Amino acid sequence: MTATVDHDALHTALEDALRRRFDDRIAAATAYGEEFAELWRTTAEGARGGKLLRPRLLVEVFQELAGSRTAADDNMVIDVATAIELLHYSFLLHDDVIDGDVLRRGRPNVIGALATGAIPTVASAHDAERAAHWGRTGAILMGDLLLAGAVLDFARVDIAAPARSRLLALVEDVVSETVAGELADVSFSDRVVTPDLPTILRMTTRKTAVYSFELPLRSAAILAGATSAAEEALASAGRSIGLAYQLQDDVLSVFGDPDAHGKDPHSDLREGKETAIIAYARMTSAWPEIGERFGAADLTDHEAAEIRRGLRVCGAEQFVDNLVAEQLREAGTVIDDAVDRGVLPRGIRPLFLALVSRLTGRRS
Amino acid sequence: MTATVDHDALHTALEDALRRRFDDRIAAATAYGEEFAELWRTTAEGARGGKLLRPRLLVEVFQELAGSRTAADDNMVIDVATAIELLHYSFLLHDDVIDGDVLRRGRPNVIGALATGAIPTVASAHDAERAAHWGRTGAILMGDLLLAGAVLDFARVDIAAPARSRLLALVEDVVSETVAGELADVSFSDRVVTPDLPTILRMTTRKTAVYSFELPLRSAAILAGATSAAEEALASAGRSIGLAYQLQDDVLSVFGDPDAHGKDPHSDLREGKETAIIAYARMTSAWPEIGERFGAADLTDHEAAEIRRGLRVCGAEQFVDNLVAEQLREAGTVIDDAVDRGVLPRGIRPLFLALVSRLTGRRS
Repeated sequence: MTATVDHDALHTALEDALRRRFDDRIAAATAYGEEFAELWRTTAEGARGGKLLRPRLLVEVFQELAGSRTAADDNMVIDVATAIELLHYSFLLHDDVIDGDVLRRGRPNVIGALATGAIPTVASAHDAERAAHWGRTGAILMGDLLLAGAVLDFARVDIAAPARSRLLALVEDVVSETVAGELADVSFSDRVVTPDLPTILRMTTRKTAVYSFELPLRSAAILAGATSAAEEALASAGRSIGLAYQLQDDVLSVFGDPDAHGKDPHSDLREGKETAIIAYARMTSAWPEIGERFGAADLTDHEAAEIRRGLRVCGAEQFVDNLVAEQLREAGTVIDDAVDRGVLPRGIRPLFLALVSRLTGRRS
Repeated sequence: MTATVDHDALHTALEDALRRRFDDRIAAATAYGEEFAELWRTTAEGARGGKLLRPRLLVEVFQELAGSRTAADDNMVIDVATAIELLHYSFLLHDDVIDGDVLRRGRPNVIGALATGAIPTVASAHDAERAAHWGRTGAILMGDLLLAGAVLDFARVDIAAPARSRLLALVEDVVSETVAGELADVSFSDRVVTPDLPTILRMTTRKTAVYSFELPLRSAAILAGATSAAEEALASAGRSIGLAYQLQDDVLSVFGDPDAHGKDPHSDLREGKETAIIAYARMTSAWPEIGERFGAADLTDHEAAEIRRGLRVCGAEQFVDNLVAEQLREAGTVIDDAVDRGVLPRGIRPLFLALVSRLTGRRS
């Protein structure tokens, strides 16, 4: 029993399905010229090695809800799981363009890789601008391809018409919520809006929780033919877990180990990212001191350490840690209650417990 | 009979359908905050007053192919026509982000309008950068919403399963071709690739002709239950007309009346846009002189006039005008031949003649 949770049969099946998808696209792309094929190859390379959190969640919950399954059911659910992972990459690509990021998980992302690959010798500011533009263009266009492809995959699921309608309405709502969340996030960083804590929590739920947790969970319910009550319970638990997940991300970005999470250690502080941590700190008497250098493009290591200390002392870290624990508890209560009422099968409980315990204390 | 071709019953029906679509979205968006609603309002405003060339083509050709129609058929085809127009806007928004354009049809586009609306008083370079970033972000995210929405509209068309499969495969191919065409176009302007004339013509067909002409024509065939032979003939004619249309656009941008086409008069020359005109000129002895200032960011009016003169004298304008005429003739031949073989109904011929005569000699 040396297999880790990341390399079980399901993980392998999902990796295989994703690889096949990309291989098909790379093969088809060569007819459109070398640049197009290279864009697909770079994207496939960048997509490798992910945690596959979202597709795993869909498949595991589907299996609990469906009871007996055919091989066709298993293939169908793997197809939808792959679509959800591709939708995730699509959002990541456009987020990276919007945020100007060229790294992900400590390596060049698609933007960075394309820029370096196309124009390897940068001899002038003009060359550098051409390379960056080429990288951004590739990421915008690949995001479009993955988004359209994911929606088409949902559209092609072979289920009865009423279930298909529910699934398509879900996808439409999820894309709209995610975009609204991202727009709100940027409205804070571009100082178009100054957010309070409830506004930040709503944005966080929309931007991440809905597509990462609510979408796979509701899709599982629809594909398994579960009741609306089951779908609602899963949606509610998904939003809570998803909010906890993103709040953890914010805490890890500021206080975590950069070697573990793979991001630039001070980027959130340097960019002045408006998170729940900051919204809390703004309400304390510690803010004037913290706020002085928060968002400074030339933030030093020493200043970043000072801000971190300030955020700890004023209680912001503890406050968000408590929020995370509260959201995870809330999700557990919703699931327990639905199981007790017979709305969800008993097997859902250990699945959620495992998910919560995986998130509690994660470092990356 | 004072009604112009732009304001007949079909044009009004299409405008109404588009307005209803945007009104629904604006109403739904208010629940997600003022910035999201404002993004939808700005987009709806920018979408008003278009020529509706693509949706008109779909509806008119569908009506010829379908023979007898029910009210449900008419509603279905208007829905797909609206989806094609929204797909067009989605591509325009992302193109404008990629090209850094803030004007369209002589007015601020979505990027320009958002930037001015959100941060009206620009007091520093930092403010200007925030405003521009906010505009670009809105355009990227709205492009995503319109793209996903258009694909979902295609997925929801109420037709038999085999026709739906054909329609979805068509949408997938069209999105892929369009993206490949746009990527090729940017690879020329970022100097990742130096194109020859055949490469430019392939790019032009992919980037514009496929989604603007082949998509509405093939969609009409599929929705009307036409034969594969009919669909193929329409596709071929559509690619030719679409190539002619884009080549005309290139000619108008360089040689046309800026008051009529609404673009910056020298932008193609200043940006060094690689068009068929330029590819031809590069093969002539006039190129060294033309190429000296072609693509200069600080091109003066006088220099632009000199380049235009050079492009005329070397025969580039005439060459592309001939290409346009040749493509329009080619489309006519394909249609005539298909009508003669009984593959397409006779009523298609006057429709295409009207389209060709509308394109011949257009000024905007």
